[in-house]
Amino acid sequence: MRATGSGFLAGAMTLAWMTVASAAEPIQLRDMGSFHVGGRIVELTGQPVRDIVRVPGGPTSKLDPNGRYQVEHMYAQYFLVQNKKARYPILMWHGGGLTGATYETTPDGREGWRDMFIRKGWDVYVTDAVERGRSGFASPDIWNAPPLFLTQTDPWERFRIGPGPGSFDADPAKRKLLPGNQFPVEAFDAFTKQIVPRWLSTDDAVLQAYLALIDKVCPCVILAHSQGGFFGFRAAEARPDKVKALVAVEPASAGPAKGAASLKNVPVLTVFGDYIEQDPRWVAYSKNVLAYLAALKAAGGSGDVIDLPKLGIKGNSHMLMMDRNNRDVADQIQKWLVGRGLVEP
Amino acid sequence: MRATGSGFLAGAMTLAWMTVASAAEPIQLRDMGSFHVGGRIVELTGQPVRDIVRVPGGPTSKLDPNGRYQVEHMYAQYFLVQNKKARYPILMWHGGGLTGATYETTPDGREGWRDMFIRKGWDVYVTDAVERGRSGFASPDIWNAPPLFLTQTDPWERFRIGPGPGSFDADPAKRKLLPGNQFPVEAFDAFTKQIVPRWLSTDDAVLQAYLALIDKVCPCVILAHSQGGFFGFRAAEARPDKVKALVAVEPASAGPAKGAASLKNVPVLTVFGDYIEQDPRWVAYSKNVLAYLAALKAAGGSGDVIDLPKLGIKGNSHMLMMDRNNRDVADQIQKWLVGRGLVEP
Repeated sequence: MRATGSGFLAGAMTLAWMTVASAAEPIQLRDMGSFHVGGRIVELTGQPVRDIVRVPGGPTSKLDPNGRYQVEHMYAQYFLVQNKKARYPILMWHGGGLTGATYETTPDGREGWRDMFIRKGWDVYVTDAVERGRSGFASPDIWNAPPLFLTQTDPWERFRIGPGPGSFDADPAKRKLLPGNQFPVEAFDAFTKQIVPRWLSTDDAVLQAYLALIDKVCPCVILAHSQGGFFGFRAAEARPDKVKALVAVEPASAGPAKGAASLKNVPVLTVFGDYIEQDPRWVAYSKNVLAYLAALKAAGGSGDVIDLPKLGIKGNSHMLMMDRNNRDVADQIQKWLVGRGLVEP
Repeated sequence: MRATGSGFLAGAMTLAWMTVASAAEPIQLRDMGSFHVGGRIVELTGQPVRDIVRVPGGPTSKLDPNGRYQVEHMYAQYFLVQNKKARYPILMWHGGGLTGATYETTPDGREGWRDMFIRKGWDVYVTDAVERGRSGFASPDIWNAPPLFLTQTDPWERFRIGPGPGSFDADPAKRKLLPGNQFPVEAFDAFTKQIVPRWLSTDDAVLQAYLALIDKVCPCVILAHSQGGFFGFRAAEARPDKVKALVAVEPASAGPAKGAASLKNVPVLTVFGDYIEQDPRWVAYSKNVLAYLAALKAAGGSGDVIDLPKLGIKGNSHMLMMDRNNRDVADQIQKWLVGRGLVEP
């Protein structure tokens, strides 16, 4: 069952038909695989050695924590499409407390943006930022800080699914929802299985690994969500020759406007969903982003904004790529990329 | 550059040609995607609330650690082949301190077992066990134990790459290697980027999530490596009707032999690489596994062993799926599966 959420009946019927047709076609890849990039070696000394049993009933073996550790590298998984229509690959960067799973199948089992963009002719790279998922994390002896763990309440109330504080309840029937919300709430518990712990102290390491990825696989287009948007702007400022476009999907921050001039030759698109004005935190986030884009325009650059409700695409939570109308949002991004000559329609 | 490592010149030349040919053919999938299975909800109370800044320059927001947490679920990624030749899907379970990346591209950039088995006509499911990779991990308030972190020394000396204690060195030129070893040592540092922290206290949770996966996607064949082998035997004992074959690749333990009779109708294959007798820990591991297989045979079951050096396939480390001759080892496993009627040749 695939919901369209467009609100226009004729458009909805066409889209539903297209969805079924594309899902029936095989995905053809000329290659796929994964690798890790970046990181550094840290050496620990003076730690006590101990004996451990690694599998039940097995022999003891020494665990010597002294020695060299690989830390702060990043995992990237790639899917290279057989019938390429895009000039460059697209890199999909997830938000805080999440992994690359963000862009895969939606929590309720529909197609996600990874496969939609592969089907649109893009080579796609999906990463797990440093500290998350298949990138692993460093010991407290190296990072000197514990991670944060998010409750189920946190994304329900902060990701514009429910109307802010007090809207989550343990009982799904009692959870309050923003009216018209497109998040697949019946799969909210499944979504919270995608949440992983996060640190507040690793921003530099995260950025360095993203730059290592850019140096390996770009020129490219970067599509970055939420906290990933912050890194997307920083990475594009540091590598404006290699980032051919930046699509910031609800960036939690664009960072200080003083860096904007570096992007004067990089087309930038930001995409916002619904209910922004009802959430003071999102008002603050979008204000920062709009100030950055104003500085970019003043420097001679181009900073476009897609405000989805203004296009009649309503009800989007912060997790646009999982919302029932995720295909409509992907199509808007694709249209912008076509307009920039980055992919054939 | 793809090394064959067979040591027989004619065989090596044929294999090199086949490798190039298959890499040039597109991978055709009727679908791919991911999901999480299993897990439970834990509620924490009485924790202090604090204000945090989630992105630099952003507004403060409350982090309230009181509430419901999703924990002990497992991430699974699937690749469903267009031209299916196998009767059931194959589930690939990784070893301790690792993730599903084990089965993807090798650390030196060659094709891994995931894609080799897809090309052989299998639907493939690759998981990250509970606590690792995209499965995330629970807070110390829930698990009450810290994870272990592995140095680079640990796998070099324990995975039969170097000849045991003292064989690793920070300087790659000074690392001692078991003679004829097939591990791609030039990519050893890249391999250590795949290592993630592990716990010694989560075995029950890991097994429960594997059972949830079996209940969702089986009947199936399970291919499990190292610590994963321990879970493979436990899971097959618990679901002998759904596990149509178990391929245990260097299982670190088969567990207590008393459970073996449960598997009397499940074909079991164990695969061992080289140098086992030179490492007391591996002698102990294989002794446990052989005792289990003897009990299985006594109960009327079938427990086959592939001892690779006896077939002339030499130099395999513990990480067989990454070794230079990983294709030869995959072909031996496929041959056994063909012999059991589980896949067309």
